[in-house]
Amino acid sequence: MIDLHLIGIGTGNPDHLTMAAIRAMNGADLILLPRKGGEGDGRSDLVDLRRVLCDKVLTRPVRVVEFDLPARAAEGPYIEAVRDWHAAIAAAWRAEIDAHLPRGGKLALLVWGDPSLYDSTLRIAARLQREGLDLRSHVVPGISSVQLLTAAHAIPLNTLASSVTITTGRRLREQGWPEGADTVVVMLDGGCAFETLPAEGIEIWWGGFLGLPQEALVSGPLAEAGPHIVALRAMLRKKHGWIMDIYLLRRSAGSRL
Amino acid sequence: MIDLHLIGIGTGNPDHLTMAAIRAMNGADLILLPRKGGEGDGRSDLVDLRRVLCDKVLTRPVRVVEFDLPARAAEGPYIEAVRDWHAAIAAAWRAEIDAHLPRGGKLALLVWGDPSLYDSTLRIAARLQREGLDLRSHVVPGISSVQLLTAAHAIPLNTLASSVTITTGRRLREQGWPEGADTVVVMLDGGCAFETLPAEGIEIWWGGFLGLPQEALVSGPLAEAGPHIVALRAMLRKKHGWIMDIYLLRRSAGSRL
Repeated sequence: MIDLHLIGIGTGNPDHLTMAAIRAMNGADLILLPRKGGEGDGRSDLVDLRRVLCDKVLTRPVRVVEFDLPARAAEGPYIEAVRDWHAAIAAAWRAEIDAHLPRGGKLALLVWGDPSLYDSTLRIAARLQREGLDLRSHVVPGISSVQLLTAAHAIPLNTLASSVTITTGRRLREQGWPEGADTVVVMLDGGCAFETLPAEGIEIWWGGFLGLPQEALVSGPLAEAGPHIVALRAMLRKKHGWIMDIYLLRRSAGSRL
Repeated sequence: MIDLHLIGIGTGNPDHLTMAAIRAMNGADLILLPRKGGEGDGRSDLVDLRRVLCDKVLTRPVRVVEFDLPARAAEGPYIEAVRDWHAAIAAAWRAEIDAHLPRGGKLALLVWGDPSLYDSTLRIAARLQREGLDLRSHVVPGISSVQLLTAAHAIPLNTLASSVTITTGRRLREQGWPEGADTVVVMLDGGCAFETLPAEGIEIWWGGFLGLPQEALVSGPLAEAGPHIVALRAMLRKKHGWIMDIYLLRRSAGSRL
């Protein structure tokens, strides 16, 4: 039996860790760190951040093993590419489990942000269960980039008594402003999908590298702040070799208090 | 100058606290704990939980003061009642600040869940600024009940590449299923607003007292799980004198992986 602990770690700053996360890390028999290979785009920074977390909070000699995370095919239909990618990741986990936990035990994965939000580790775990692996998933919530964004700007996520839509750059680009939404949070935006919206009457709060030393924040009316964000994002991406960013859009006419 | 630290504490279990939250609590000159008075409905449990957190994590002699939190008027239009309530809370904070931090300093408030999500402390702080108080807000994100719900059920918040709507019981009751939504999280539901939906094709994941010893979970097709939740919720509320709960609804036909 594998007890799989999916531990939310925030965005790489040890301050984001909860007491529960620290306990779960120290309680593991094996921590697997994914290594994203071959792109030369600075993504190894992300492995390094997880390593730093382990060095910082492990007070027991927990085995920490890096493994090569398969890359997603850039070609072909999106959903099929994701399915194939998940299958490849499941096989990679399986190989590490067979090698390091042949008789079962507690396996921990350190998940960026919160394991529930735009993350596929739970789906990959379910895939391994369907394939017959005796595995039970446990989730330790982590601070998500949505929360770090609103905290950094010191703004509420919702306007009073209103709803919030969390969506992806892809959906915003394809479907425009979500029907009936007052506040929209956009994640997984490889570009700047807000450029496809009519800017009139929309405000934006943007953050890159949230919670990290290189954190960058911009806010204002979309018409003015939008072009500034596009330029800043390109500059930061070039400088650091990678970027993780997120933004919140609000209709200026929304009810406020 | 008042440096106001709004510290997200999760739902009262010390394990939910982040390292940043613990540091901010210990760095405060004054921690104010709201006491909800006179209802005899067991809500003093909530003050007690905050007290327990203080006892557990404070390693410095930080001053901890309880104050009476005004109650919201149960009568009259909702938005106006909330505005009046915020004004009364702002006045209560101001009185404590004048009494205990007359020359400024670091004031900490322990906010249930995350300070950005269906919480009004940021709005009340903005009100005090408008009234001329020299105050700066800092937010320390906390684990929200949304995250504790998905973690407890070990489910993702979103289905693959889809969006999520977070809304209130009031809005669900008045407006029905949000347009275009696949996944809906309902908060601040004093009743069981899901009863107003046609149950066909909807699944529910419900949680009460998340992260606490009395945690209760129910999930399943809304048609069967719904009535069970209504009965269980009434029983738990009677037994404990109060309840905090939240639920996630998903269209069964939504894309899955």
